Amino acid sequence: MLEALKQSVWEANMDLPKYGLVTFTWGNVSGIDRESGLVVIKPSGVPYEEMKPEHMVVVNLQGTVIDGDLRPSSDTPTHLVLYEKFKNIGGIVHTHSPWATSWAQAGQGIKALGTTQGDYFYGEVPCTRPLTREEIQGSYELETGNVIIETFDKNGIDPNQVPSVLVYSHAPFCWGKDPHQAIHHAVVLEEVAKMNWHSYQINPGLQPMDQQLLDRHYLRKHGANAYYGQIG
Amino acid sequence: MLEALKQSVWEANMDLPKYGLVTFTWGNVSGIDRESGLVVIKPSGVPYEEMKPEHMVVVNLQGTVIDGDLRPSSDTPTHLVLYEKFKNIGGIVHTHSPWATSWAQAGQGIKALGTTQGDYFYGEVPCTRPLTREEIQGSYELETGNVIIETFDKNGIDPNQVPSVLVYSHAPFCWGKDPHQAIHHAVVLEEVAKMNWHSYQINPGLQPMDQQLLDRHYLRKHGANAYYGQIG
Amino acid sequence: MLEALKQSVWEANMDLPKYGLVTFTWGNVSGIDRESGLVVIKPSGVPYEEMKPEHMVVVNLQGTVIDGDLRPSSDTPTHLVLYEKFKNIGGIVHTHSPWATSWAQAGQGIKALGTTQGDYFYGEVPCTRPLTREEIQGSYELETGNVIIETFDKNGIDPNQVPSVLVYSHAPFCWGKDPHQAIHHAVVLEEVAKMNWHSYQINPGLQPMDQQLLDRHYLRKHGANAYYGQIG
Amino acid sequence: MLEALKQSVWEANMDLPKYGLVTFTWGNVSGIDRESGLVVIKPSGVPYEEMKPEHMVVVNLQGTVIDGDLRPSSDTPTHLVLYEKFKNIGGIVHTHSPWATSWAQAGQGIKALGTTQGDYFYGEVPCTRPLTREEIQGSYELETGNVIIETFDKNGIDPNQVPSVLVYSHAPFCWGKDPHQAIHHAVVLEEVAKMNWHSYQINPGLQPMDQQLLDRHYLRKHGANAYYGQIG
Repeated sequence: MLEALKQSVWEANMDLPKYGLVTFTWGNVSGIDRESGLVVIKPSGVPYEEMKPEHMVVVNLQGTVIDGDLRPSSDTPTHLVLYEKFKNIGGIVHTHSPWATSWAQAGQGIKALGTTQGDYFYGEVPCTRPLTREEIQGSYELETGNVIIETFDKNGIDPNQVPSVLVYSHAPFCWGKDPHQAIHHAVVLEEVAKMNWHSYQINPGLQPMDQQLLDRHYLRKHGANAYYGQIG
Repeated sequence: MLEALKQSVWEANMDLPKYGLVTFTWGNVSGIDRESGLVVIKPSGVPYEEMKPEHMVVVNLQGTVIDGDLRPSSDTPTHLVLYEKFKNIGGIVHTHSPWATSWAQAGQGIKALGTTQGDYFYGEVPCTRPLTREEIQGSYELETGNVIIETFDKNGIDPNQVPSVLVYSHAPFCWGKDPHQAIHHAVVLEEVAKMNWHSYQINPGLQPMDQQLLDRHYLRKHGANAYYGQIG
Repeated sequence: MLEALKQSVWEANMDLPKYGLVTFTWGNVSGIDRESGLVVIKPSGVPYEEMKPEHMVVVNLQGTVIDGDLRPSSDTPTHLVLYEKFKNIGGIVHTHSPWATSWAQAGQGIKALGTTQGDYFYGEVPCTRPLTREEIQGSYELETGNVIIETFDKNGIDPNQVPSVLVYSHAPFCWGKDPHQAIHHAVVLEEVAKMNWHSYQINPGLQPMDQQLLDRHYLRKHGANAYYGQIG
Repeated sequence: MLEALKQSVWEANMDLPKYGLVTFTWGNVSGIDRESGLVVIKPSGVPYEEMKPEHMVVVNLQGTVIDGDLRPSSDTPTHLVLYEKFKNIGGIVHTHSPWATSWAQAGQGIKALGTTQGDYFYGEVPCTRPLTREEIQGSYELETGNVIIETFDKNGIDPNQVPSVLVYSHAPFCWGKDPHQAIHHAVVLEEVAKMNWHSYQINPGLQPMDQQLLDRHYLRKHGANAYYGQIG
């Protein structure tokens, strides 16, 4: 069942240690088959060295396990909310990658300070508000998804143009058109989280980059007039 | 004698360089066989490349060598005090891992700033008070153990819920139900020591994380209602 | 066509991941054949793992592709301006290496604080001014080259003695007598960007190094009286 | 001639990249045969990948090449002064290792903040004063040695108890009873340079460690009553 997607979700999960994004089992990747509405996600707490494509778990958007012998990641409800509301995304990555998590712990978004960020994110990667006590004590993982949606809605941010978020006191979630691209964004996020941290230490009053420069870099790689890479 | 425990203590010692927790021989791991009250510990000053399971030294809780040709780690008295007082622990790790040691040198504990810490430590990893001149000039390694016990007692911290400590001007000690889990905690401690350091540089006035969020994360992995990982 | 130069440009491109200077495809190297005025440059957006010498693209100084099936790097116009104006250089490297980029994002040059920098750079590696809106919305990559030239001209800096620059809100460009030496300078720049950053954190009021010491170190490795290395 | 020492000096030179202490050829190791008064040192500017034991150069304490086809390291005069004045040392290492060099560039010594330093250095690793113009323009490398000697003499520091120094605006020199131990000290210096840097960022007003604790740690590894490691 969904063998190709299981393979691709497994590969993306294996990319987490390869890119230095996780310690132990602190991360998970999922992918969705939009036609059937089924999501393939990493099982909970299985070491990367032992993980195989057939361990991936299939759940529907209500969270019911449809296929697989293991329990899905405890963060599954967060993934499902994002797939439900961000209609164009096909893959999600959650990590505790150290640079991005340091910003999440500080409760601050990652503003665009240079073209590295501008090549992938059309502006600041936002940080959510803290969850309320009710949200934490209720369906916590579901509410984590809801507060991400709220962050994008309230601030008028397009999740296709800013494919990552920091969850307050927690860590990042990243997404993309498929699990592979979501991993790509997680790597970029970690890199800009690191560089921006250093830039602010040089100049604490640093302002976000010029909007025209951001437009230029984002649009030369995305949209109708992109001219980066090898084109069709 | 205690071959399985020697093997397990040796493996945990070999994990120290693997996880980047030690330079040269700056670390040691021990494990206890609670039934016989015997402790297996690394020999003093032997390079990791040459260390074999049969080099592990067996001592009793009074510190007498029961088995082995080499001298036990000079930190053995510290380990013994911890086994004596923390009745549920089965393994201890001491390292000079750089991030945790930087906090120990600064004389400050590592407060819980995010869910990464909350998944393993139920609150702040404390730093001991400085040893007194008398303690330093007396049975120094024994007194190091005593000041750790004092830190947990005075602050009402449960060593099973906060399985690590920083010794003032020195370095961390970590523990767990067995040597393997003690290593696991040493890795986590180093990771949160690193991330928290960076978070405070972003926001020097940062406060500890919300208690409800800490409860939620700690308890979803520990205790009767845990729902993380593959259960039973 | 220009097979030896293609090989050398390819090797230099492969050195980028080897020296930790790039993430994904975020970098490009070119070399020029001064006799024919032809430039060999990396194709745009091709992963390093798949890149071969025959993928290198040959363009003339007007930017017309003379040889090769792939599109040249989108930064080609910047390279061409530098070759046009800096007559003695034979190779150019562009990266988003994290330490140098952190300085570029902060909009500050890298002053000479010690002999490591003095061995390769005869003083500060400058940071350009921000591009204007017109420059960004016009021939952006060409204007990036122009602002580099302006930075050296206005400040009376000899590009042969300071073979690197930081582009404001963007990242470094480095050069040398050939692609191999340009890579060498990119590695040194990253190293001094890192060390200087740390030195300023120790002492925020730190002044540039003594001019005599800079002279001594730069001139013991460069110029007529050099006495470093194995000499003819 | 002095084949065993050449082998040992070569091995120590090869340890520089192994321990991450050098970039390119930025480092050199020497060893002395006290009986003959001859010094074996790395040749100048030879890449580590190509270096063989037979490339090592033999010089006498006056700097005359006695054996070898290559030119000795340009820093040879510094080494020779140290051998001349520090009668008990048998090996010297010079690197531009990034953490120690960051302190040297900031012109500050590395105070003892914890037991990691206390296990190897009996107090602060000092930083020299700046060289004068006359010293820089005269026999620069020789004067670098002289200012190191002056630093130890004026401050009453025993080079056997503090086997490293930072040269102002430059980088560290480390030594030991032989080239191997000098490398060991260079690794420790880099580690404490890193950890102390981080400790000061946590607590800028941090004071040096308690003298009794320093005594205890230094003396448990050195001197007549040492009880660390496998003895006799």
